[in-house]
Amino acid sequence: MPHSSPTVGVVGAGQLGRMLHQAAIGIGVPLRFLADSPSDAAVQVAPAFEIGSARSAPDLARFASSCDIVTFEHELVDVEALEDLERIGAVLRPGPKTLRLVADKLGMRRGVEWAGLPVPPWKPAKTVEQVLEAVDEWPEAVLKPSRGGYDGRGVFTVSGRGEAAVVAERLLARRVPLLVEPRLDFELEAAVIAARSPSGEIVVYDPVATLQVDGQCRQVTAPAGLPEGMAAEIVAIARRAVAALDVVGLLAVEVFVVEGSVVVNELAVRPHNTGHHTIEGVVTSQFENHLRAVTDLPLGSTTLVVPAVAMVNLIGDADGTDPRGRLAGALALDRSAHVHLYGKESRPGRKIGHVTVCDADTVSATRRAWRMAAALGCQVPEEVAR
Amino acid sequence: MPHSSPTVGVVGAGQLGRMLHQAAIGIGVPLRFLADSPSDAAVQVAPAFEIGSARSAPDLARFASSCDIVTFEHELVDVEALEDLERIGAVLRPGPKTLRLVADKLGMRRGVEWAGLPVPPWKPAKTVEQVLEAVDEWPEAVLKPSRGGYDGRGVFTVSGRGEAAVVAERLLARRVPLLVEPRLDFELEAAVIAARSPSGEIVVYDPVATLQVDGQCRQVTAPAGLPEGMAAEIVAIARRAVAALDVVGLLAVEVFVVEGSVVVNELAVRPHNTGHHTIEGVVTSQFENHLRAVTDLPLGSTTLVVPAVAMVNLIGDADGTDPRGRLAGALALDRSAHVHLYGKESRPGRKIGHVTVCDADTVSATRRAWRMAAALGCQVPEEVAR
Repeated sequence: MPHSSPTVGVVGAGQLGRMLHQAAIGIGVPLRFLADSPSDAAVQVAPAFEIGSARSAPDLARFASSCDIVTFEHELVDVEALEDLERIGAVLRPGPKTLRLVADKLGMRRGVEWAGLPVPPWKPAKTVEQVLEAVDEWPEAVLKPSRGGYDGRGVFTVSGRGEAAVVAERLLARRVPLLVEPRLDFELEAAVIAARSPSGEIVVYDPVATLQVDGQCRQVTAPAGLPEGMAAEIVAIARRAVAALDVVGLLAVEVFVVEGSVVVNELAVRPHNTGHHTIEGVVTSQFENHLRAVTDLPLGSTTLVVPAVAMVNLIGDADGTDPRGRLAGALALDRSAHVHLYGKESRPGRKIGHVTVCDADTVSATRRAWRMAAALGCQVPEEVAR
Repeated sequence: MPHSSPTVGVVGAGQLGRMLHQAAIGIGVPLRFLADSPSDAAVQVAPAFEIGSARSAPDLARFASSCDIVTFEHELVDVEALEDLERIGAVLRPGPKTLRLVADKLGMRRGVEWAGLPVPPWKPAKTVEQVLEAVDEWPEAVLKPSRGGYDGRGVFTVSGRGEAAVVAERLLARRVPLLVEPRLDFELEAAVIAARSPSGEIVVYDPVATLQVDGQCRQVTAPAGLPEGMAAEIVAIARRAVAALDVVGLLAVEVFVVEGSVVVNELAVRPHNTGHHTIEGVVTSQFENHLRAVTDLPLGSTTLVVPAVAMVNLIGDADGTDPRGRLAGALALDRSAHVHLYGKESRPGRKIGHVTVCDADTVSATRRAWRMAAALGCQVPEEVAR
């Protein structure tokens, strides 16, 4: 058995954990998962796990005691419990201070502003009155509960005071403050991933162009095709944010370009959907660099190995088709496409896998990737030109 | 849990099984291993296994009953037991007829000749007298027990009748017939891998140049730098052999070039050390194509994705240095090298991992790969120019 590699505990055992495990096998880092269920995507393919909740202090304490280093696959964790564990010597990467910032959209906005980075206009709101004040300023507004949402769940667009009051009342009943911002007419969406090790080494991947539908990432392409200055600006934002927020591991930054200016929309401190193309398209995948970072190994090259790469998510279609039953037909269509399946039952709207295609340009790569998604019986959004 | 992907049983759980599991995670094929020990390289990283022997009929029967398809990571199996299992409906890929041919060097030679493919001169020998007759013809000869060897173990070079008699007597005491052949002064060594599905689809990877030391593969480079006609001839040999021997899954063919002619040296029907470079260097890795073949999915592209790729094996050095303790130093040297560790303790002469480097040409890739091996404290053979 390995003796000089530390055991890395991963809180959460979904598809991100599953892909972390693939990378961990390569460099010989033993992983251990804290999973909600024995059928979780990562648990299906990995030998070491315990069942428990990331929101339970005793479960986190028990889990941390069985690992040398603890990292996270999602941010829905009991941060107070992690603070206690860190005090008694647990090695948490990223640490609870960083997780606290990112788990709360209001904290995240304050953190990003504090780091001197551009954000969209925003206001916190704890009452319906505060929401309505904001809506007076921005009649087309977006309300986001500050905690608990992901993948576009928990993003509510409202138009005018009437609708705003109804939605705000319902959301505030959960006693979670809201982040209110104007609905942004952005010219484009992009994302960037940085990795940082405890020694302070930082690498940044090339920014990617993303397509989100209803707040859910559907398509990622690299190179992003941004003006050179803008790409450099996005990389600089990631580099500054990863250090300012004391991130160890990965930081994903989603940005909008509004009237020619970059603003930071969201942050995540973990492997991210906008980095799945790095498995085949980049020298070192985001998953391997996350593991290198949390084990304080030198970080790997983030250079693209192909001219262009496109990643599209496989989202369960309304008719419940299981893509596994269509795999043979799809693979016959394109001998160079990379299909990743997460071992999940298909359900409408559920992310069950992704397809990556490398090609000479992003237009061809994207067209081929969506053709695979369609052949696998998955959703193809109207926004995608066929 | 996955429901439309068959469970693939893998007989053997070493590093080949470990890398098969990495590929299986991607395409969502559940694997189950028949392992010698719970510390086996694949078992360390995979959830489903049973302990048992590939040479035990009851163990194989129990294992086969828990899988939809059975494949093999090595050829040291009880072929009679597999024949019985096939008769009662087990799905074995490759089948026992193919395994029987390949597990016996004499059978392999006959099979290759029968397929109309070039082999070196050879004679079977069951007695010391037969060995001496052969040595009268070829004073510098190689004796190989027909069963049981691998990785250069079981290859004995002898010079003249005196030495031949001593070695032959010792080897024949095991009651295993010998293959005798002249010691070949080959100009170069190469290898090629083909994949074939039950539907009969065949793909062939580009041939690679290999460097063997004491019969153990140490270095693989692609492109092989062969004259165009010779590369095509080697591909044609693989294509003919994979069909003639009714291989399902992978076939690796090791060849020598002797006086300008290609002759087949060895065959293996499984993922092979001469195909590890395909993980990063080729669109579809040998491991994914093996899984696609045995589950009868369309096979993936075998095109190189980089100009050149080199793979070197990490072999434990005499001083017992564990490369895991030197990983940080090595990764700092080269941010684009891919280090694969198999979770094995380092012992002198033991294969404990490999390094793959992609570069603009094989000379640079090879130099960088050996630099990593040296930095990891592993053997660097004298044959390698530094």
